[in-house]
Amino acid sequence: MPHRRSVFFVSDRTGITAESLGNTLLTQFDAQEFKRETVPFIDTVEKAQELTRQIDEVGATDHLKPLVFTSIIKADVRAALQISHALVIDFFETFIGELERELGEKATLQLGKAHGMSNEAEYDHRIEAVNFSLNHDDGVKLKDLAEADVILIGVSRSGKTPTCLYLALQYGIKAANYPLTPEDLDSPTLPKMLLPYRSKMFGLTIDPARLHYIRSERRPDSRYASMDNCRREVNEAESMFRHHSVPFISTTHKSIEEIASTIMHKAHLNRRF
Amino acid sequence: MPHRRSVFFVSDRTGITAESLGNTLLTQFDAQEFKRETVPFIDTVEKAQELTRQIDEVGATDHLKPLVFTSIIKADVRAALQISHALVIDFFETFIGELERELGEKATLQLGKAHGMSNEAEYDHRIEAVNFSLNHDDGVKLKDLAEADVILIGVSRSGKTPTCLYLALQYGIKAANYPLTPEDLDSPTLPKMLLPYRSKMFGLTIDPARLHYIRSERRPDSRYASMDNCRREVNEAESMFRHHSVPFISTTHKSIEEIASTIMHKAHLNRRF
Repeated sequence: MPHRRSVFFVSDRTGITAESLGNTLLTQFDAQEFKRETVPFIDTVEKAQELTRQIDEVGATDHLKPLVFTSIIKADVRAALQISHALVIDFFETFIGELERELGEKATLQLGKAHGMSNEAEYDHRIEAVNFSLNHDDGVKLKDLAEADVILIGVSRSGKTPTCLYLALQYGIKAANYPLTPEDLDSPTLPKMLLPYRSKMFGLTIDPARLHYIRSERRPDSRYASMDNCRREVNEAESMFRHHSVPFISTTHKSIEEIASTIMHKAHLNRRF
Repeated sequence: MPHRRSVFFVSDRTGITAESLGNTLLTQFDAQEFKRETVPFIDTVEKAQELTRQIDEVGATDHLKPLVFTSIIKADVRAALQISHALVIDFFETFIGELERELGEKATLQLGKAHGMSNEAEYDHRIEAVNFSLNHDDGVKLKDLAEADVILIGVSRSGKTPTCLYLALQYGIKAANYPLTPEDLDSPTLPKMLLPYRSKMFGLTIDPARLHYIRSERRPDSRYASMDNCRREVNEAESMFRHHSVPFISTTHKSIEEIASTIMHKAHLNRRF
């Protein structure tokens, strides 16, 4: 029976960064199975000591050295974790000395705000972007188009809604969502209300077979979901994008993160917080 | 005139991890100003060489060594970046050798899937969770409550909607959203339809002054937004949580990531992909 090795992602905040980078490293090892646990908000020496005890117990039970990926900032809390019998991969301590030398400044070792903005202002900004995205999801108004940072267009179920929400939550970007209806697609010219905003537009396309699959989950055996109709709609949408030189990407083999970061990069958008 | 140092977050994928960890490190240095740029999808030697040239040009113009934070996986692409005259902080190369030794296996050095699940299955799962969250945002049905992984309850504008969406996008969690109306709050007992699901419930509360501010942005000078009403609603909601031992957290000084990861941790929820 192969043993599964225990992995802990430990952070004084959410653990999302430690988890994400730790998982990137672990995917490089195919022959292993891992039991993963994320432990956020380890921000005192006492919590770190208690966790160290738990990790060492798990290691003893597993007969395998646990892996600990951590990005804890406070030196005393970090030190309490380092005495665990695990392999501790410290994303913070490893680099902070090199940065101190290059920048000629000592690290404050304070739990800081990620971008120098207060939590509340950042929160308000993201909520505003989320609400922007939610409020017009069922039909965009002219005012929304004018206010948007970017306008995503594409056929129904090409991935616009989750991408808009991800852009709002991750980057604070106000993304409007314009679904191309079969009527819109009858002509290769953009719907009239969109014309003044061509420079803000970004197209999403999708492989017709994948679209057929997604639509069939919602409305099996419908004309809407039929392979023929999906192929026609996708072709017409792509013709429209080309006709107006609207940049576009295929969402077919991409994660939501990849779709969103491609749009940020290609549309030269900057994070709003 | 103080110079701003250029910082590049470089990745063969989205750059979100390199950016997030790089920014955590940079917040430790208060005396510096940085010009940040995220450069995703550097996945060939040619792209890396072109970027290296650009980074070196920026360094020459700035008269300051740029900082490069990178998580590139392929060895030849990484090598092309290392010859830049910047300070390159390599989140991948630094740790992969140590992991290889501990795990007794060579890294595949392949661009992998983050959790061993195919992109498409992961995508479908997250979209399903997002749609779950969107479909009942204006009124939850009994069926939704039964299907939900977690049910967030709280007064209007306490942060339920963005938290539900973040839980769906980041963790694939189906989070239902039950807004406590003034009528619900007349009694300290949970609304009847919620009673069977007490174990899945998680409460959100908020500082009344902050709630007053948020509501006033939407409906200035309304009874809904008045300080008195906000104070009363928050008190009654917290009494209800205590009466039924529903765990709850305050969203007041927290980012959406912090709210979501606290709920994941305290409600013992696991990432669904």
